[in-house]
Amino acid sequence: MKKDRGLLIVLSGPSGVGKGTVCAALRNHDTDIQYSVSATTRNPREGEVDGVNYFFKPKEEFEAMIKNNRLLEWAKYVDNYYGTPRDYVEETLAQGKDVILEIEVQGALQVRESFSEGVFIFLMPPSLKELRSRLQGRGTETKDLIDSRMTVAKEEIEMMNKYDYVVENDEVELAVERIKSIVTAEHCKKERLIEKYKELAEVE
Amino acid sequence: MKKDRGLLIVLSGPSGVGKGTVCAALRNHDTDIQYSVSATTRNPREGEVDGVNYFFKPKEEFEAMIKNNRLLEWAKYVDNYYGTPRDYVEETLAQGKDVILEIEVQGALQVRESFSEGVFIFLMPPSLKELRSRLQGRGTETKDLIDSRMTVAKEEIEMMNKYDYVVENDEVELAVERIKSIVTAEHCKKERLIEKYKELAEVE
Repeated sequence: MKKDRGLLIVLSGPSGVGKGTVCAALRNHDTDIQYSVSATTRNPREGEVDGVNYFFKPKEEFEAMIKNNRLLEWAKYVDNYYGTPRDYVEETLAQGKDVILEIEVQGALQVRESFSEGVFIFLMPPSLKELRSRLQGRGTETKDLIDSRMTVAKEEIEMMNKYDYVVENDEVELAVERIKSIVTAEHCKKERLIEKYKELAEVE
Repeated sequence: MKKDRGLLIVLSGPSGVGKGTVCAALRNHDTDIQYSVSATTRNPREGEVDGVNYFFKPKEEFEAMIKNNRLLEWAKYVDNYYGTPRDYVEETLAQGKDVILEIEVQGALQVRESFSEGVFIFLMPPSLKELRSRLQGRGTETKDLIDSRMTVAKEEIEMMNKYDYVVENDEVELAVERIKSIVTAEHCKKERLIEKYKELAEVE
């Protein structure tokens, strides 16, 4: 039986909800999920490895990738570009492996435009109160910045409609189990399997 | 936060695929899934308990249930009626509990008509050869009967299109894990959660 194409899983949600923590915990589980590596024009920090933490690109090369539609999504923060190279994702999916992208809400909506068959998961805080407390817990942001992130978070929650699934991040391990279940269930969807099984029904 | 309505999970598939075995194995797992009890007009066998194995009904009462649309599906085998009472399913779902029905393909398609929001899972043999070997393994059926079941099975596989998910029953425990994942994933579907979370986005 021929190997199915992998799934692109897009994990997103408001700043502070715990996307990074959930993704890191997922890595500790025994899954075949591959992790997409972003490209950026910023300089590598101490200990960062090209192709592991990021693909470090000169500005001209990044801009050529934008122009040639080689990025599933991209954004510019201050003076640096960040984005998701399309080639790595496409090649991995073609090998029958699932790929997960952990990105901001705006980036996820861009991916939806160019890759609508992806599985879009919105990671949700148990409450807005809890989200504020997580942002405060980082201890790195001023009250004004936190207020502004909370305003953005409320707007982002309204965009939940563009996603396929909503996973509450009440406890990291529970959120990870829900994400793993979503991946398993998506592989069992009739639409993904019907051709394979029609062949099976003809052969005895 | 108000409790979500439960899900109706319909597990079906060709005769011999192992629906009963998978359902029994699922019962041994720690889940909150409830098992629907069928109604029948046949006489109880030694040790069968009313309301546990079946709801045993007089013929007149069963026919009144058909007439009043109190069954999600029903069929007549030889001289006896069998069917799924609607009330138990509706009451259990309203309590926020999931209900699983394990039924034949024709019954599942009837349920689809009256309960389209159910989660329909088609249990699939790894191959038709394996299905024949499972039917032979029962040791209770003649070669003619097995041939006829195989013909029906091929027709039923064509009906897979009416289902939401296809689960391969290669190993019982793997099939059970896939079904549990489907149930978890369905509870995370955006459509089922969006109203709840829109309320959340308004309250801090």
